[in-house]
Amino acid sequence: MNSRPSSPFDANPSMAPERIITVELTDRSYTVLVGAGLLQRSDLWTRGIRAHQVLIVTSAPIAQHYLNPMLKTLERFSPEVIVIPDGEQHKTLQTLELIFDKLMQLRFDRSATLIALGGGVICDMTGFAAACYRRGIAVIHAPTTLLAQVDAAIGGKTGVNHHLGKNMIGAFYQPSMVVIDTDTLSTLPVRQLQAGLAEIIKYGLLADEPFFNWIENNLSEILGLRSQAVQKAVLTSCQIKARIVAEDETEQGIRALLNLGHTFAHAIETLTNYQSWLHGEAVGTGLVMAAHLSMLLGYISTHDYERIANLIHKAGLPTRPGLDIDPKSMLDAMKQDKKIIDGTLRLIVIERIGQAKVSSDVPLVLLETTLNTFCQTYA
Amino acid sequence: MNSRPSSPFDANPSMAPERIITVELTDRSYTVLVGAGLLQRSDLWTRGIRAHQVLIVTSAPIAQHYLNPMLKTLERFSPEVIVIPDGEQHKTLQTLELIFDKLMQLRFDRSATLIALGGGVICDMTGFAAACYRRGIAVIHAPTTLLAQVDAAIGGKTGVNHHLGKNMIGAFYQPSMVVIDTDTLSTLPVRQLQAGLAEIIKYGLLADEPFFNWIENNLSEILGLRSQAVQKAVLTSCQIKARIVAEDETEQGIRALLNLGHTFAHAIETLTNYQSWLHGEAVGTGLVMAAHLSMLLGYISTHDYERIANLIHKAGLPTRPGLDIDPKSMLDAMKQDKKIIDGTLRLIVIERIGQAKVSSDVPLVLLETTLNTFCQTYA
Repeated sequence: MNSRPSSPFDANPSMAPERIITVELTDRSYTVLVGAGLLQRSDLWTRGIRAHQVLIVTSAPIAQHYLNPMLKTLERFSPEVIVIPDGEQHKTLQTLELIFDKLMQLRFDRSATLIALGGGVICDMTGFAAACYRRGIAVIHAPTTLLAQVDAAIGGKTGVNHHLGKNMIGAFYQPSMVVIDTDTLSTLPVRQLQAGLAEIIKYGLLADEPFFNWIENNLSEILGLRSQAVQKAVLTSCQIKARIVAEDETEQGIRALLNLGHTFAHAIETLTNYQSWLHGEAVGTGLVMAAHLSMLLGYISTHDYERIANLIHKAGLPTRPGLDIDPKSMLDAMKQDKKIIDGTLRLIVIERIGQAKVSSDVPLVLLETTLNTFCQTYA
Repeated sequence: MNSRPSSPFDANPSMAPERIITVELTDRSYTVLVGAGLLQRSDLWTRGIRAHQVLIVTSAPIAQHYLNPMLKTLERFSPEVIVIPDGEQHKTLQTLELIFDKLMQLRFDRSATLIALGGGVICDMTGFAAACYRRGIAVIHAPTTLLAQVDAAIGGKTGVNHHLGKNMIGAFYQPSMVVIDTDTLSTLPVRQLQAGLAEIIKYGLLADEPFFNWIENNLSEILGLRSQAVQKAVLTSCQIKARIVAEDETEQGIRALLNLGHTFAHAIETLTNYQSWLHGEAVGTGLVMAAHLSMLLGYISTHDYERIANLIHKAGLPTRPGLDIDPKSMLDAMKQDKKIIDGTLRLIVIERIGQAKVSSDVPLVLLETTLNTFCQTYA
């Protein structure tokens, strides 16, 4: 019972087997395909779609580049299309209703499939719409940003924002397939590429030392979008995330490690009203701060802390919260996320490069030292 | 793996074990308690709630009768309360947002518990809010109408309406406990009691002939709210539903049988804009029409058809769609639900009293005969 259903990619796949990842979740298992030019591969899409009714959900900037090729690839499904507003400020129940309205007007039934073509916001909203429409229809993610390719598209965290908090309304809902076409990164602004790189570095830091070392040695190849390097970076990140999600789908335990650096990052994003920082940029700085704290806790050496801070810096990411953020505000914002009990709090720390853990008794005084170090240097 | 977690009611329950039903869904299994006066039983509630943060979701008419007793019972949890508008027209994403706003203002976390105190609309909306808030928190259903006690509160179908269709936005999301206090039926208008009875009769018809016979023989005891009779009616209905849901949680197969009579009922409700008929009333008429069709198909005898029609009639339920509905409109409305392929369609039919099945090749001409019989008699 609950065994994994056969995947259409199990036998004789028409792509290299090493580029096929399976997220093992018994009856909700699914395939992640990683490669160049996959949006053009009708054969793969035909294999993965089991519906007559297909709706592509995308945004205007993405549609401009990729909608026509996608329509051609999916020609035999005569897909319908809805273009929705993109960006965190539009990740709301109101935008979700646009998708529901479209599905109802089309009279799509429970066998329909949604395709999310875009970045993290498009994937999060489309996934949540699929989770709710008629209590659940299929969704395929085709992420077009580096951040979405290594994070949002895999693992089934879907949802929208509440005006009082990010991602507060949502569902754990797994896609039926994820198609990652690394060619789409060629139209990505470099700042967004760097933002995606922050999450990739995170995977090395929390789970895979050789991968971290490889990123250090191949940074310019990745940023230069050299095909081999980009595909390895994405593929390895997805493998790590797939493994962790398979172990802990609804974040009761180990999946929390994926939030390394994120408590710092969320505080920065909150204090700047999600305006000036990209999420990945905030994660970059958050990783450096988590590394600093881990050093203070005695887990990693000064040398390793410097390696981490250096890599983030060389990736073009910010390594400090900026002049407008003081330690006190930062601490207050972090308290929204975490409870301080008896002068200690629970944070994810780096035990050594390639291994993270939840530390449930981080002394407040050490966190304050890190905050003072990072927020007051320029004061 | 995925084995059923221990229930707080497994050992030494302080209520009769025969009034405790378990819905067996591996790691999502839960307990349904049926009895008189259960809203007053602090001991049971304390056993079932594993949270510090509790929010009661209810409506004004229900609050009037049951909120104070409930607050007293749950005193040790210092529960918060939100009163939301009730009724199908308020079963919308907009009303859902009121619950989300409250939860966010209260800063409730993932360990919080919602309690749905009310009828089917309250249970459906509260369940869906619980499914979505922070991607899922606990919900306990305390249904106060007969219909909700035997239907909405069990099985995890949650959701809201879209303006183009009922229950189109939702989730399969199981409660952590269901507490059915049959004493609450004493404040229920008799028309709503009769409406609930339609679903109870449905359970007998589709799964349990002795239960159907028992209802025939004890109808006045049930309608007279004789405690023993009401509790047996509710308990047996819940047992049947629990068994079917355990077998087919997301309605891939056998669970569809619970829709016996509902294709007719939905057509009646649609044609009258959900204004004049209660859902249970439409189900009553739908059952008679499904029985008539089953007779035409040669499954049940004229005698059995008459037994069914008689029981529905004696339960105080309507047995015909009414003068304003003609067969053609009815057929058109049913086609919205079901596809007609090559002159046949898929409907749930009664094979014999106590057994239903999905028939995938009901000749259109027989359905038309049933519609003509029921919709034109008074013309």
